[in-house]
Amino acid sequence: MTGAHANPDPSIMDLSVRVYYEDTDAGGIVYYANYLRFMERARTEWLRAHDISQQRLKEDGKGLFVVRDLAIQYRQPAVLDDVLIVRTTVQTVRKASLIFHQEVRRAGELLCDAVVTVCYVDSATRRPLPLSASLQTAFKPARN
Amino acid sequence: MTGAHANPDPSIMDLSVRVYYEDTDAGGIVYYANYLRFMERARTEWLRAHDISQQRLKEDGKGLFVVRDLAIQYRQPAVLDDVLIVRTTVQTVRKASLIFHQEVRRAGELLCDAVVTVCYVDSATRRPLPLSASLQTAFKPARN
Amino acid sequence: MTGAHANPDPSIMDLSVRVYYEDTDAGGIVYYANYLRFMERARTEWLRAHDISQQRLKEDGKGLFVVRDLAIQYRQPAVLDDVLIVRTTVQTVRKASLIFHQEVRRAGELLCDAVVTVCYVDSATRRPLPLSASLQTAFKPARN
Amino acid sequence: MTGAHANPDPSIMDLSVRVYYEDTDAGGIVYYANYLRFMERARTEWLRAHDISQQRLKEDGKGLFVVRDLAIQYRQPAVLDDVLIVRTTVQTVRKASLIFHQEVRRAGELLCDAVVTVCYVDSATRRPLPLSASLQTAFKPARN
Repeated sequence: MTGAHANPDPSIMDLSVRVYYEDTDAGGIVYYANYLRFMERARTEWLRAHDISQQRLKEDGKGLFVVRDLAIQYRQPAVLDDVLIVRTTVQTVRKASLIFHQEVRRAGELLCDAVVTVCYVDSATRRPLPLSASLQTAFKPARN
Repeated sequence: MTGAHANPDPSIMDLSVRVYYEDTDAGGIVYYANYLRFMERARTEWLRAHDISQQRLKEDGKGLFVVRDLAIQYRQPAVLDDVLIVRTTVQTVRKASLIFHQEVRRAGELLCDAVVTVCYVDSATRRPLPLSASLQTAFKPARN
Repeated sequence: MTGAHANPDPSIMDLSVRVYYEDTDAGGIVYYANYLRFMERARTEWLRAHDISQQRLKEDGKGLFVVRDLAIQYRQPAVLDDVLIVRTTVQTVRKASLIFHQEVRRAGELLCDAVVTVCYVDSATRRPLPLSASLQTAFKPARN
Repeated sequence: MTGAHANPDPSIMDLSVRVYYEDTDAGGIVYYANYLRFMERARTEWLRAHDISQQRLKEDGKGLFVVRDLAIQYRQPAVLDDVLIVRTTVQTVRKASLIFHQEVRRAGELLCDAVVTVCYVDSATRRPLPLSASLQTAFKPARN
């Protein structure tokens, strides 16, 4: 029902997400901040698919991925019981940051999409850390 | 990774839930209210497995399932990246209410468990509605 | 400690918000989606200060304010126990939409800021509704 | 509008909480897990009123307050825009734990109430820590 789906292009990943009561509000639709929760689940699964565990990074006292900025457009509302597909694509890889494009769809229809910049920072000092060569490779879009 | 799992006894259902950043707090563990979110997802999947869609009930202007009371014990904390199994068992079926027992486990270890009373009420008046015969049958534990 | 604060310019309003455990995550900071919750509280208080109750609009079967798009920049993290000031300013008033600028500060320091477009729509059809003349006046920045 | 209110009996404290969209669900009422958020805000303000900052305890590497168990009864639903009063009373003080009684009311009407056991534990080992004499005194109900 839910779960991450492989894609031939490793820079792309689909995660399916079920809408529960917790996600909705009294307007009868998914509360606007909750798409950011769905999108973070999808980025986390993208990292996990590339063998990067944020909990392990945290325990190792290494870096932390933090969102620097995002721009999101809400086009159509999702409602209770919907099954949504969150497609995550890496757009740009920089020295210490990544830019993701994320789309939320229901049965093909685009409900909302966002561009999200994520930085890799030292968990203590919050200063930018260079992504390791292996992270750089992991994040490199296949088509580049 | 996540999803509902069938059980030979139809009164029991397991849902696996991944712990994301959204679920944790600055104490480094899952925030105590969020186990209630996990448990509601599991009850919803229990209903769905018995062919009951809450969104359809809502659209049909029929009843609504609401939690009347619950008692929960927190034994061990869950942390980021954990995969949890929420086991949902129907304990008692009454005329207009159900009592669920729910357990959250990680690799077999019991992290928390709760007894939750859910009532079926008219969505407008909030007064108790009798569970239909088919609902009654759906909710009946196999062992009764 | 918390609450809305009047401003000589009616297009501006400050809301103070306390950070609780529910707002933080295992990174030790406020979870990125939760600034959107703070910002919506502040927009709601802005509306209330202009005598617009969203619950009354909803009961009257009139319009609903929905977020169309937003762009947010995260500059510095907030942590547990912080008292934040969310400053809300109306930037633009259109026929059926409003553009807010919102800043979150701690002791004067800018932590994050966003530009948020909110549309007024029919609660049933979700189609744009013209803001009434009184709403238009309410939303008009004082300096225009 | 919101904020903590002093009480002649120091074991009792009232916190007022406004209901926003984030707190509600598609059933049109406050989502059941969110009363636990309100109640934790109130316990935190209770601690703060007794000069206990959880952020400071955390930074000092000292203890952490964690919920051990709770039992809650939902009597009437709260809706969007409601102003709720959460009354927090310390019922019992033990060596390493406290039992709170908490009530949520709207204009005097009881909406829900809970009994919550909170333990004081070592933030690293999660083992019980004795409450200091000053904490013991702080937590002691006035009437004892």
